[in-house]
Amino acid sequence: MHESSLKKLLESVAQGKTPVDRAVEKLRGTFSEELGFAVVDHHRELRQGFPEVIFSEGKTPAQVASIAKKIVKNGSVLLATRANPRHYAAVRRSLPKAHYDPLARVITAQEHLVRKRSSGIMLIVTAGTSDIPVATEAQRTAEMFGREVRTLFDVGVAGIHRLFQKAETLYEADVIVVVAGMEGALASVVGGLVRVPVIAVPTSVGYGASFGGVTALLAMLNSCVAGVTVVNIDNGFGAAMAACKILDRKG
Amino acid sequence: MHESSLKKLLESVAQGKTPVDRAVEKLRGTFSEELGFAVVDHHRELRQGFPEVIFSEGKTPAQVASIAKKIVKNGSVLLATRANPRHYAAVRRSLPKAHYDPLARVITAQEHLVRKRSSGIMLIVTAGTSDIPVATEAQRTAEMFGREVRTLFDVGVAGIHRLFQKAETLYEADVIVVVAGMEGALASVVGGLVRVPVIAVPTSVGYGASFGGVTALLAMLNSCVAGVTVVNIDNGFGAAMAACKILDRKG
Amino acid sequence: MHESSLKKLLESVAQGKTPVDRAVEKLRGTFSEELGFAVVDHHRELRQGFPEVIFSEGKTPAQVASIAKKIVKNGSVLLATRANPRHYAAVRRSLPKAHYDPLARVITAQEHLVRKRSSGIMLIVTAGTSDIPVATEAQRTAEMFGREVRTLFDVGVAGIHRLFQKAETLYEADVIVVVAGMEGALASVVGGLVRVPVIAVPTSVGYGASFGGVTALLAMLNSCVAGVTVVNIDNGFGAAMAACKILDRKG
Amino acid sequence: MHESSLKKLLESVAQGKTPVDRAVEKLRGTFSEELGFAVVDHHRELRQGFPEVIFSEGKTPAQVASIAKKIVKNGSVLLATRANPRHYAAVRRSLPKAHYDPLARVITAQEHLVRKRSSGIMLIVTAGTSDIPVATEAQRTAEMFGREVRTLFDVGVAGIHRLFQKAETLYEADVIVVVAGMEGALASVVGGLVRVPVIAVPTSVGYGASFGGVTALLAMLNSCVAGVTVVNIDNGFGAAMAACKILDRKG
Amino acid sequence: MHESSLKKLLESVAQGKTPVDRAVEKLRGTFSEELGFAVVDHHRELRQGFPEVIFSEGKTPAQVASIAKKIVKNGSVLLATRANPRHYAAVRRSLPKAHYDPLARVITAQEHLVRKRSSGIMLIVTAGTSDIPVATEAQRTAEMFGREVRTLFDVGVAGIHRLFQKAETLYEADVIVVVAGMEGALASVVGGLVRVPVIAVPTSVGYGASFGGVTALLAMLNSCVAGVTVVNIDNGFGAAMAACKILDRKG
Amino acid sequence: MHESSLKKLLESVAQGKTPVDRAVEKLRGTFSEELGFAVVDHHRELRQGFPEVIFSEGKTPAQVASIAKKIVKNGSVLLATRANPRHYAAVRRSLPKAHYDPLARVITAQEHLVRKRSSGIMLIVTAGTSDIPVATEAQRTAEMFGREVRTLFDVGVAGIHRLFQKAETLYEADVIVVVAGMEGALASVVGGLVRVPVIAVPTSVGYGASFGGVTALLAMLNSCVAGVTVVNIDNGFGAAMAACKILDRKG
Amino acid sequence: MHESSLKKLLESVAQGKTPVDRAVEKLRGTFSEELGFAVVDHHRELRQGFPEVIFSEGKTPAQVASIAKKIVKNGSVLLATRANPRHYAAVRRSLPKAHYDPLARVITAQEHLVRKRSSGIMLIVTAGTSDIPVATEAQRTAEMFGREVRTLFDVGVAGIHRLFQKAETLYEADVIVVVAGMEGALASVVGGLVRVPVIAVPTSVGYGASFGGVTALLAMLNSCVAGVTVVNIDNGFGAAMAACKILDRKG
Amino acid sequence: MHESSLKKLLESVAQGKTPVDRAVEKLRGTFSEELGFAVVDHHRELRQGFPEVIFSEGKTPAQVASIAKKIVKNGSVLLATRANPRHYAAVRRSLPKAHYDPLARVITAQEHLVRKRSSGIMLIVTAGTSDIPVATEAQRTAEMFGREVRTLFDVGVAGIHRLFQKAETLYEADVIVVVAGMEGALASVVGGLVRVPVIAVPTSVGYGASFGGVTALLAMLNSCVAGVTVVNIDNGFGAAMAACKILDRKG
Repeated sequence: MHESSLKKLLESVAQGKTPVDRAVEKLRGTFSEELGFAVVDHHRELRQGFPEVIFSEGKTPAQVASIAKKIVKNGSVLLATRANPRHYAAVRRSLPKAHYDPLARVITAQEHLVRKRSSGIMLIVTAGTSDIPVATEAQRTAEMFGREVRTLFDVGVAGIHRLFQKAETLYEADVIVVVAGMEGALASVVGGLVRVPVIAVPTSVGYGASFGGVTALLAMLNSCVAGVTVVNIDNGFGAAMAACKILDRKG
Repeated sequence: MHESSLKKLLESVAQGKTPVDRAVEKLRGTFSEELGFAVVDHHRELRQGFPEVIFSEGKTPAQVASIAKKIVKNGSVLLATRANPRHYAAVRRSLPKAHYDPLARVITAQEHLVRKRSSGIMLIVTAGTSDIPVATEAQRTAEMFGREVRTLFDVGVAGIHRLFQKAETLYEADVIVVVAGMEGALASVVGGLVRVPVIAVPTSVGYGASFGGVTALLAMLNSCVAGVTVVNIDNGFGAAMAACKILDRKG
Repeated sequence: MHESSLKKLLESVAQGKTPVDRAVEKLRGTFSEELGFAVVDHHRELRQGFPEVIFSEGKTPAQVASIAKKIVKNGSVLLATRANPRHYAAVRRSLPKAHYDPLARVITAQEHLVRKRSSGIMLIVTAGTSDIPVATEAQRTAEMFGREVRTLFDVGVAGIHRLFQKAETLYEADVIVVVAGMEGALASVVGGLVRVPVIAVPTSVGYGASFGGVTALLAMLNSCVAGVTVVNIDNGFGAAMAACKILDRKG
Repeated sequence: MHESSLKKLLESVAQGKTPVDRAVEKLRGTFSEELGFAVVDHHRELRQGFPEVIFSEGKTPAQVASIAKKIVKNGSVLLATRANPRHYAAVRRSLPKAHYDPLARVITAQEHLVRKRSSGIMLIVTAGTSDIPVATEAQRTAEMFGREVRTLFDVGVAGIHRLFQKAETLYEADVIVVVAGMEGALASVVGGLVRVPVIAVPTSVGYGASFGGVTALLAMLNSCVAGVTVVNIDNGFGAAMAACKILDRKG
Repeated sequence: MHESSLKKLLESVAQGKTPVDRAVEKLRGTFSEELGFAVVDHHRELRQGFPEVIFSEGKTPAQVASIAKKIVKNGSVLLATRANPRHYAAVRRSLPKAHYDPLARVITAQEHLVRKRSSGIMLIVTAGTSDIPVATEAQRTAEMFGREVRTLFDVGVAGIHRLFQKAETLYEADVIVVVAGMEGALASVVGGLVRVPVIAVPTSVGYGASFGGVTALLAMLNSCVAGVTVVNIDNGFGAAMAACKILDRKG
Repeated sequence: MHESSLKKLLESVAQGKTPVDRAVEKLRGTFSEELGFAVVDHHRELRQGFPEVIFSEGKTPAQVASIAKKIVKNGSVLLATRANPRHYAAVRRSLPKAHYDPLARVITAQEHLVRKRSSGIMLIVTAGTSDIPVATEAQRTAEMFGREVRTLFDVGVAGIHRLFQKAETLYEADVIVVVAGMEGALASVVGGLVRVPVIAVPTSVGYGASFGGVTALLAMLNSCVAGVTVVNIDNGFGAAMAACKILDRKG
Repeated sequence: MHESSLKKLLESVAQGKTPVDRAVEKLRGTFSEELGFAVVDHHRELRQGFPEVIFSEGKTPAQVASIAKKIVKNGSVLLATRANPRHYAAVRRSLPKAHYDPLARVITAQEHLVRKRSSGIMLIVTAGTSDIPVATEAQRTAEMFGREVRTLFDVGVAGIHRLFQKAETLYEADVIVVVAGMEGALASVVGGLVRVPVIAVPTSVGYGASFGGVTALLAMLNSCVAGVTVVNIDNGFGAAMAACKILDRKG
Repeated sequence: MHESSLKKLLESVAQGKTPVDRAVEKLRGTFSEELGFAVVDHHRELRQGFPEVIFSEGKTPAQVASIAKKIVKNGSVLLATRANPRHYAAVRRSLPKAHYDPLARVITAQEHLVRKRSSGIMLIVTAGTSDIPVATEAQRTAEMFGREVRTLFDVGVAGIHRLFQKAETLYEADVIVVVAGMEGALASVVGGLVRVPVIAVPTSVGYGASFGGVTALLAMLNSCVAGVTVVNIDNGFGAAMAACKILDRKG
C-alpha cells in the first residue's frame, strides 16, 4: 500500500465516509498476510518506501509464485531476485504477464505501476564483462523502483584509460554502484575521483585465492578512499536498494 | 581549496585581473605538495568535497605534525583520526590550538572554518556502551564537516524496547549510522524500521568467536534488510564520510 | 529397551522367575548389536532417555535399512535424519510402513510407539521461508519423541512487527528453537523477549559472505542476550534433542 | 524489580491504595534508566527472570561503577563479569560491601538478596586445571541467581577413568556445564553418558592450532552426541545463565 | 627393486659374473623411468622400504594405467589409491588381473608378491560407519605391504561403552590408526588408554561447522593426550604408511 | 597495434602523407573498442608489450567469440585462456583456423604472427603429473608470445634425486616457473639451487587440508629462499606473463 | 608407579606377604590423587608407559609446584613443559634440586630415576636457528624418558647441500623429528630420503602469511611423502612422546 | 666466495701453484661453517649470486652477532634484516663499523665491498606513508647488492593523479616494487601502466578486516593485470632480492 492510498483511507475515515470497523479490516489485511510458509509484509512499502521483494533462492517455485500473486493482488510492483527458470515458470502460470531476465535472474511484473521517483542518476560501473550479471540485477531493481540508470561496463584498472575516457559520465552521476570481482580495485579508483556516494559490490568473479568474492569484499572494505560502503558478495539488489534510498534524499 | 576559491581565481583570470602564469603557479601548489614521506593531497577538497584527513596510525608523531601543518597552512580544517597522545603532543607543538578527544582518538583544529553543510540530521546509534568510542569518532568527523549529529547510545537488541522508546528519533533522521559489535543485530533491526539510508559499522567489541569484529562485520553484510551498507571494522570515520556524502545529496 | 522393561526383567530375576543366565543373555543383546559396519547402541535409550537415531548422510541405503531394521526389531521408534529418497527406498523394502518427509529429509516408523512425554510446549521459530526445512527436521524429531510442537515461520527482523504480533505464542512456550540463516539476528531478538531457554540453529540459507551458515553461527554464538545456546549449522535434529531434554526436566 | 514487587504494586492500584499516576511514575523508573553512555535495563528481571548483569570489558571503571550503583539502588543483586581490579576499585568506592573474585573476574554485591530458586543441581565439569577460571565465572553467576552448584575439575579424556570414578556425581546433576579447551572432547564423552541437558563451554586454553578456543568450539558444535548445545568461547557466564533457565523449568 | 635383488646384483659384480657396464645399465633403469608426464621412482623401494604408490586423483586413466604397467613390469606390487572406476577400467586393459575395491577406491595387483613384513598388529578403529571407506583405504594399503590388520568399526564416543567392551583388542595392538570425523574425540580417548603409537586420521564426515574434516583435524592436533600424531583429512593411505614404518621398527 | 606500426603511422603524418584527421581516426580505433559488454583494449600491446588476452571463464561463448574476432581483426595474435569446448565452438565459427588445447584449456589463433622475442629460456618445472595442465597453460602462453620453453615434469621432493638428475637443465634456464600443489616444497628447493628468478605457481592439486591450493600458496609465500615470487593458484598464464616480461629485460 | 613396582606388590599379595586390604589402599593412592584444582594421574605410567607430565601454561606457579611435589613424592621423574621462570621459582621452593632450561622452557627433577629405555636413536632436525627452542623441548622430553637423542640444526632447504652433507646421520636414526617453520618443506625432503618414521613439528617461526605456524602445519599435513605424521604447532613435547612410543616398539 | 675467487683458486690448482690438498681444505671451509646453532652457507653466493643474509627475528643477539662475524670474516658484505636495537648492539661489539637503519630494521657492514651490478633501475613505489619502512628494507637490500634504486612514496589510488604526475619515473624503471597495505590496489594500477616486471609487496598497514596484510596480499594475488607477482606480507627484503635477480638478467 502506497502512502498516498493510506492517506486517502484515513481522510475518508476522518470525513465519516468510511466506518472505523471497515478501515480496521482493510488495514489489517495490508499489514501482513500469512501464507503458512511465509508472512508477506505488505506494510513494508509504507515503512521503508519500497514494497517487499522476493528473494527466490531457497524457496520452491510454488512458494515464489504464491507470494508473487499476493504482492500483485495487493497492488504493488513485483520484483523477484535470484530466480531460476523454474521459479519463472511457476510465476507465469498465475501471472502471465511477468517477465524474466535470465542474465539478472529477476522476475518482474506490474511495470506499469512503476513511478519515476527522482531526477537523480544512478551509475553502475563494472570492472569486467563477467561482472555484468550482478550489475544487471542492480539495474533491473533500480528501474522497477523508478530510477534512471546509466551503465559503464568493463572499465577495470588493468586498462585504466578506459575509465578516464568516461570521466564525464562519472561526474554526472548522483550515486555510483561499482561492481568488481578479483582484487576489486575499481571501487577505490572510482571513489577517489568523485564526490558522490559510492557503493561497492564485490562479485564472485575470479578463481583460486579470490575465494568466491571474499578477496574483492575485503579489498573494498579496506578501501583507502573514505566513504566507500560495501554490500554482500554478488548483492546487486542490495546495492541498488541502498542507492535508491540515497536518491530519495531530499537534501 | 574550496570550490568557491577556485571559481574566484578562474573568474579573475577570465577578467584579465590575474595573468595566466600566476594562476598556473597558484593552482599547481594547491594540487599536491610533496613532503618526501607524503604527498599532501590539497586537491582532494575540490575533487571530493572534503579536505584530506590524516590517518595517524602507522605514522610517526613528526610525520603527522608535519602533514597537519601543511593542511592548516593551506586553509583547511584539520582532522587527524586514530591519533594517540604522542601524535597530539607533536601536533600541538606547531598548532597550539589543536584539540584532542581521547575517546574518539581524533585531533582537530581550525574549527572556526567549519561551515554548516546541510539541514539534514545524521543519527548515530550504538548497541552498547563499549561501542561509544567508535561512534564518537564518527560524530567528531561529521561535526568537523559541518553536519548536525544526534546520538542514541546503548539500545542493543537484548532490550529492544529501549530502541522502540526512541522511535521518534529514528524517524527524524536523514541518514543513520549504526555502530555495533558482538552479533551486530542492531543494524538489521534499525534498517527494518526506517526508510533512510543505514550505514553499519561493526566494532571489535566482543570476545571469543567475535574475532575482533569479524562476526559483526559478516552479520551486517548478510543483513536480511535490503539497502544496509557496511564499512570496515571500527571505521567510524568512514561511516561518517559516507553519511556526509549522502547528506550532501540535493535530491 | 525402555527403563520399564529393564525393571520388569530385574524384578523377574529377583523373584526367581528368570534364571540369571537367561537375564544376562537378554541384557547382552540389548546392550549393543554388531552389524560389521555398525554397532547399534540399543542401550542408548536407557542411558540417555532416547533411542538411537540414524544419521543417514554418508551411509549407504543398505546400511541405513539394516540399522533401521534392528532398531524396529528391538521395539524402538525409528527416526533416520538426513535421508535421501534412495535411503527411504531401501528402508521401505524391509519396513513397508515407514514414512518419508522430503522437506525434513527424515524417515520415521513405529509412530504408534511414541509416548507423550510432558505437557511442555516446544516452539520453533524461523526467520524466513527458506529456513523451514531445518525447522521441520526439528519438528519431526520432537514429535517422534512425544512432544507438543508449535511453529512460527517467516518472522525475521526485516519486518519485526511480524514477530511482535505473535508475542502471545512466544510467551506460552516452555522452550524455543530459533532457526535462522543470513545474519541470524532473530535469535538475539527472541532471546531478549522471553525467560525460557532459547536454542539457536544457524542455517546455511544465504549467499556470499554467509559462508554456508558460518555467519549466522558466529552471530548466534556472540548473542548479546545471555543464555542463548547454539547447535551446529542446519542441525534441526540436535536442537530438538536439546529442547526435549530440557522439557524432560521435572523442576 | 522482582515479579512479586510488581504484583504488589498492581494489587495496591486495584485496591485504590496507590493512585494510577503514582504507579505510572514508579513503573516508568523501573523500566530503564538513562545514564548518557548506557541505558540500564531494570525491566530485564521482569522480562527474563534475571536482573541486568554488567559485562565490564570495554567499559571504563567509572562506567561500571555508575551502572552498578543504579542496579543496587533499584534493589537487585549485583553481578559484574569480566571485571579487572580497576573496575573493582571504582565499584568499591560507592559500594564498599562489593566483593571481587579475581579467578572468576566477577564483582558481586547484595548477596543477601539472593533467593534460592529451585532444588535442581547444576554440575560444572572441567577438562583441566586451566579451565577453572571460566568454570568459576559460571559458578559465581549461578550462585548469585540462587542455584546449587557442584563442581568436578580436571577430569579430561587423557585419563578418562578420572571421570568414570565420579559417575555418581554426573548422574545426580539436573543440568551439566562442561568446560574444556584444546580438543574439547569432554563435552561429547559427558554428553554420551547422561540424559540431562549438557551445555558446552569451549575455553581459550591451548596453543598453536587451538586458535584461542576455536578448535574446542568447533569440536563441541560437531559433537556426535545429540543435544549438546554450545556457547561462546570462555563464556562461563552465558552457560550458567542458560543452565539457570533450564533449572527454572517447572516440567 | 627389493634390497635383496640389489645385493645379488652387486655380489655378482664383485664375483666378476656381471660386467660393470651391464650392471650400470641395469641399475640405471631401476632408478627412475621417464614417461614424459611422469618419472616413475623405482628407486623408492630401496630408499624408503616401499615401492611407489600411484595417487590417481588428478591423473587421467591413461596416465594411471601407463604408470601401473611400469611398476608391475619392474616387479613390484601395485597399489593405486583414490582411483575411480574409469581409472580401473584403463588399468585392467593392460593388467587384467588387477582388482578394484570401490569402497576403499584402490586398485591392486601382484598380490602374490606381497611379503609378510612383521608380526606386529595394526589396529584400525573408526568412530562411525561413515568413516569406514577411509579406514578401508588404510587397511588395503597395509595389507599390500604385508601387515596384519584388525579393525574395530563404529565405536565412537557417543556410546563409549562400545569401545570399552573391546578393550582387549586395543591392548593387543602394536600400532593404532584412529579414523574419525565430526569432533574427532575418539583419537584422544583411545590415545589415553593405550601405550602404543596412535595415528589419527580426520575424515570429512560431518556437516556445517565440520568444514569438510577441518574440525576433526584441529581437534586431533590439539589432543590433550601426548604422542598422538595426525595425517591429512581422509588420508587413510598415509596413516597406514606411517603405521607400517613403525611396525618395521626392530626395537 | 605493434609499436612499429605506430611509428610508421606517425612518420607518415610527419611527412605529410597522412592527414591529421585520418591519423586521429585510425588511432582512436586502435585505442579501445566498445562492444557493449566489453571494451577491447587494443592499446595494451603498446602500453604493456603484449596484446590483450581473453580470460574466458565467466564469459558466454558469444562474448568470447566476439572479442576474439575484434582482436584478430586488429592484427594481433589470439590467446584465450580458461576456455571450455563451448567457448571454442563459438570462436571457431568466425575463426575457423583457431586451435584448442583441452589440457591447457586455451584457444589460440594467428600463430604465424608470433615473433620470437629473445634468446632466453623459460623452464617450467612441475612437482607431479597432476600439475601438468597448469604448466601447459603457462607453456602455451609463452609460446604465443614467442619464447623458447623447456619443461621438466614430475620431479617433486618425494624423490628429490629426480630433480638433481636434471641439474643441467635447471642451470641453463634464464627464468624458472615452478608449478606445484600439495605442500609446494619444490619452489623452495629449486629456488635454493639457482640464481635466476623463480616464479612459483601453486596448484589446486591435493585434498583435505590442501584447501584447493591455499596450502601450496602459503608455503610458497613463506619460502625460506629469498626472491621467489608467487602468482595466484592455478595461474599458469600469469606466471608465464611475468616470466616473459623478465626475459624481455635487456640487462 | 612403574610396572615393575606393581608386579612386586601383586606377587607379595599372592605370596600372602601383603594383606589384600593393605594392597587396595596402596593401589588406590597410586591411581589418582585429588588436589581440588587437579587430579594427578599417577596411573598414567602404568597405562601409557610414561608418568604424567605437567603442562604449565595456564596454571599458576602454586598449582605447578603442588602437582610437581605429588609426582616426585610418588617416585616418578618430573617434567614440566612450557614453564616460565615464575613457575620454576615456585617449584624450586619445594624441590630445591629441580632444574630449568630457559630455552626449552622445561623444569626437570629426579633425573637419577631416568632409565635408559632402548638402544634406538631419536634424531631431531631443524630447518633454522629459530626452530631450536622447540627442538630442545623435544630433546629434554626424550632424555627424561631415557632415550638417546642426536640433533642436526639449521639444515633447511634454502641450502639443501647442508642436509645432504649429513646423510649419514639421517640414515643412522631410528625415528626422526623434523622441526620447521615458514613453509615447512624440510619435513618432505627428509621424509623422502629415509625409511624410518618421520614426525613433523611445525613451528611459529615466520611472519606475515606464516600465520603463527599454520602455513608450516598445513604444508606438513599435505606432504607428498607418504607416512609423515604431524603434531600441533610448536609441540616439541608431543613429537618426542610419539617418537618415544615408536622407539619402545619391540618389532 | 665470489665466483672470481673460485676461478682464481682453480686456475692456481691447474697451474700447479696450489696443491690439491690445500685447495680442498680451502674450499671445504667456504662451503658451509657450523656454529652449533647455525650452519653458515658461505656457498650461497656462488650458487645464487648473493651472499647469505641474516634473518634476525627469532634469533638471539648473540646468535646474530656470531653469524655476522663469520660472514664478514669470509669477505662478504653483511646484511641482517628484521634486526632490533639489541641485535645491533651485539653485532657492533664485534663489528664496530656496522650500521643500523631503525626504519628499515637492517644492520649492514662492509659497504665498501658492494659492487655495482648493472645499469638497470629498481623503482620502489608506496601507496602511503606507513608503507615506507617496508619500502626502505627493500631499498637497503638492493643497495647492499649494488643496484640503483629510486623511490616514489605516498602515491596511492585515493589520489591517483599523484601517480600520473610521476608517469615519467614509472616509465624509466627496469623493474618496479609496489609496496601497499589496506586494499593493495596500487599494484594493479601500476601493473596496468608499465611493461616491465612488477613485484607486489603487501604490508600489514591497515586495521579491522585488513587482517595484518592478508587483504592486500589476496588483492595482489588476484590482480586483473597479468604478470604481477607477489611476495609475503611486509617482505621488502624478498621483493628486492627478486628484483635484483631480474636486473641481473642479461637479455
